[in-house]
Amino acid sequence: MQDERLTVRRRDLLSLIGTVAGSAAMYHAMTALGFASESRYTGPIRLDGDVKGASVLILGAGLAGMTAALELRKAGYKVLVLEFNDRPGGRNWTLRGGDTFVELGGFKQTCAFEDGLHLDPGPWRIPYHHRALLDYCKRLRVALEPFIQLNHNAYLHASPAFGGVPQRIRAVKADFQGQISELLAKVATQGRLDEGVSKEDKEILLLALKSWGALDRDYKYKASLIASEYRGYAKPPGGGLSAAPMPSEPLALSDILKSQLWRHFWHFTNYELQTTMFQPVGGMDMIGKAFAREVGDLIRYDAKVTEIWQNDSGVTVTYVDAKNPTQPQKVTADWCLCTIPLSILSQLPINVGAAMKQAIDAVPYAASVKVGLQFKRRFWEEDDAIYGGISYTDLPIREIGYPNTGYNKSGRGILLGAYLFKSASSFEFTAMPPDERVARAVEFGAYIHPQYRSEFENGIAVAWHRVPFTLGCGGDWSEETRKQHYRNLCGIDGRILLAGEHASALPAWQEGAILSSLDAIARLHERVIKP
Amino acid sequence: MQDERLTVRRRDLLSLIGTVAGSAAMYHAMTALGFASESRYTGPIRLDGDVKGASVLILGAGLAGMTAALELRKAGYKVLVLEFNDRPGGRNWTLRGGDTFVELGGFKQTCAFEDGLHLDPGPWRIPYHHRALLDYCKRLRVALEPFIQLNHNAYLHASPAFGGVPQRIRAVKADFQGQISELLAKVATQGRLDEGVSKEDKEILLLALKSWGALDRDYKYKASLIASEYRGYAKPPGGGLSAAPMPSEPLALSDILKSQLWRHFWHFTNYELQTTMFQPVGGMDMIGKAFAREVGDLIRYDAKVTEIWQNDSGVTVTYVDAKNPTQPQKVTADWCLCTIPLSILSQLPINVGAAMKQAIDAVPYAASVKVGLQFKRRFWEEDDAIYGGISYTDLPIREIGYPNTGYNKSGRGILLGAYLFKSASSFEFTAMPPDERVARAVEFGAYIHPQYRSEFENGIAVAWHRVPFTLGCGGDWSEETRKQHYRNLCGIDGRILLAGEHASALPAWQEGAILSSLDAIARLHERVIKP
Repeated sequence: MQDERLTVRRRDLLSLIGTVAGSAAMYHAMTALGFASESRYTGPIRLDGDVKGASVLILGAGLAGMTAALELRKAGYKVLVLEFNDRPGGRNWTLRGGDTFVELGGFKQTCAFEDGLHLDPGPWRIPYHHRALLDYCKRLRVALEPFIQLNHNAYLHASPAFGGVPQRIRAVKADFQGQISELLAKVATQGRLDEGVSKEDKEILLLALKSWGALDRDYKYKASLIASEYRGYAKPPGGGLSAAPMPSEPLALSDILKSQLWRHFWHFTNYELQTTMFQPVGGMDMIGKAFAREVGDLIRYDAKVTEIWQNDSGVTVTYVDAKNPTQPQKVTADWCLCTIPLSILSQLPINVGAAMKQAIDAVPYAASVKVGLQFKRRFWEEDDAIYGGISYTDLPIREIGYPNTGYNKSGRGILLGAYLFKSASSFEFTAMPPDERVARAVEFGAYIHPQYRSEFENGIAVAWHRVPFTLGCGGDWSEETRKQHYRNLCGIDGRILLAGEHASALPAWQEGAILSSLDAIARLHERVIKP
Repeated sequence: MQDERLTVRRRDLLSLIGTVAGSAAMYHAMTALGFASESRYTGPIRLDGDVKGASVLILGAGLAGMTAALELRKAGYKVLVLEFNDRPGGRNWTLRGGDTFVELGGFKQTCAFEDGLHLDPGPWRIPYHHRALLDYCKRLRVALEPFIQLNHNAYLHASPAFGGVPQRIRAVKADFQGQISELLAKVATQGRLDEGVSKEDKEILLLALKSWGALDRDYKYKASLIASEYRGYAKPPGGGLSAAPMPSEPLALSDILKSQLWRHFWHFTNYELQTTMFQPVGGMDMIGKAFAREVGDLIRYDAKVTEIWQNDSGVTVTYVDAKNPTQPQKVTADWCLCTIPLSILSQLPINVGAAMKQAIDAVPYAASVKVGLQFKRRFWEEDDAIYGGISYTDLPIREIGYPNTGYNKSGRGILLGAYLFKSASSFEFTAMPPDERVARAVEFGAYIHPQYRSEFENGIAVAWHRVPFTLGCGGDWSEETRKQHYRNLCGIDGRILLAGEHASALPAWQEGAILSSLDAIARLHERVIKP
């Protein structure tokens, strides 16, 4: 797209290839020409050649570790995975009724959700361009359904604005867009537009603003059926003799600007959060479980690593039983792929070079808290016509996530009652006992949905800095830290190399973990094949 | 929202009611105060009182007719439904492998889709605010899944623009929004903004434009990682040592304006098409079938109405066997609710007053053609990362709809290969034999997806003006016609009244049919109860 003429010629070429050689050949040509580049991932990794019996010890059975285990075994390596938890997946994790969870500090929670309901305390959505993760879902037969990121009928809420009354996203968006368009149209019709816009373009621009901004014939955005077709009606169109719609009244641009509600708009356009997003049917841990069906026989659970030691000939890892830490055990291998979060790894003895050690120590972990709440009925659907998606607020809970499954049914439902990702109150919530986190989520949520008061049943709260296996949500790279340490973190140090979301440019995303792992094992394999 | 102060007081009141009397009471209060008005529909219709054995003859077993049948029988009426087709649902219709369909002119098509695949030739999506339809889906246990209206990674295509190369929706949207923001920001920073914007608002406006338009620190929208976070990357972020992203190059505003691609943006913001939309799991006719499970015993299929006659005491309807029209039969009832499309009804003898007759004759029907195409594999997902949603083009096919179910799976798939709703080529396509419509859809679609050439297997095409039971897609009211005739169409004429999408302000929507029916039977019931 950088050169239109070139693009045209490319297309002609591709069309020719498609006709002559079929669509698969054409797609490969497209990729080669940089025409279709949704992802670095272009299909299953190929690790050809004789690995001569090499062994790899993988630390961590999260998505990075299990991806490596699956592909390395396929390539002929001897593989063993050590995992701290008694389950696969790591942060790929789903809580259901009956699950228990003990956090750092000793608080133990037992999930009391009704059968069939769940919360994903870690990752909860998959972008369409996370092609590696999607390919593993396909290969491992994980069924997907849409995750609704933008629900026009969910709320934007700012306590000091609009008398504290939450506003429908559709209304705020349409009113902002409409009044921005009106401002620019006014400038254009009055000849005050930038001299860089040609007369011809200006005419089309006015048409475009009218259509895009729901402006009337005088380029005004105001209470009208035209604007209501975007923002919603006071009375929507009906049937029979009671059919006529009534327009709604826009919010003033000045009020929207002062409300700061526009700060949420990026959630609806950002590449990482664009349609079509997905979630696995039944919970995010369906992915971890699917990997474990393939490589579960390679995983030693409840293994808490206490030391990582290498010399010229291999790596020795010491571990204890995580639940009953008595006699340490040792395992050795030719190579070690370590996917342990840096928040943990930085506390372990490991003899890597100074550059990698500094990198391991340099990256703080983002704070995140999620609270799941069970309610007697899906009042957000029944009363408020909110089906899936997210409401945003300036209250400490920050987000309310509505379930993107089981729509329009009677019975109980789970809301994500708080999602404090790197927010001002993350550590405050982390410091609270879990039941207080839940109580606060209910209290704050009632400002958005007063039904909370009578419909709430039970909740569970995960504060990631208190999760023993990760002590934080994900690597929180600053631009500066990344410049200084990232390559040192990812390089091979003797016989050790690292992988995980922290070793990627997609921190806190599952795709980052997988791409990091694929990149690491490709480099490891090259070293093994051509020593 | 029309009076901020009032809203605040309302909310306090509601909060109080919620605390004191529970959330159900609060919601009723909210509705009473006009606070929550997603729809005229506030729950199941109540038809109380003694109907004294009154009988109603319903013409048509579409959603309007079956809604009336269900509710009228519940209220105590004697009900009979006459239906032209040998199945319930009318335009609520799904085509699957093995289904046959004979259109006006005699062309017979047999659907050759693989088992489990289907096309909805009529309605295919349900907005979240179509509360009546959603309530019937809930009561009749029709499972729903999201219909993706906006897929950022689908295409916008204009043959003369960008060398004919389809552009990702995300890129066109972000580039338009970004450059509009840049234009307005420039005006603002140079003091050329409208005097109506205060200095304080201007400062916030600049921040908002920066965030909303992905502008850099100098308020420029250009090739950068900032812009790429909205429009997508040349190389997206990856993992390990190959992680660094590369920014993509924006399309010039002038090119976007001239391309007319912005004309499609309304599809992504319009109230009728906003998230969250739905489709029934398994095909739209799951709704018609669910209704028929309730009222199927009241329906006489294959009954082609030939005359509707009323006098002071009742209505007599004559009909013949639609498949074997020999001896006409007559049925009588106290009342007749006629949901026959006006395109058909206007051709039948019916003794209503001049006003209603003129209304029946006044409404033309919109032309619409849909073509379903089966392909060997879901190349749009595999090659192009398009999961659900719609691509728009200026080619006669106008839209390509991707399946919103069975994502990320191997095997065959169905595309909506053409959707000509009131488009310039609707009648041209209607005039073609079905196999030519299919061939043209494949030919045009290959400009967007060259894979069509090697992956196409079979197709089916429904041109609504040739569909014998409706002769068009839906009532196509002009503003003028509606002003003159709408109330006359919906009033009770003696013992006859009409319902259907044509008797609503939601033409061609299923919700219009249901709301029209509920409005009609409420008025009929009032007449019966208080004669």
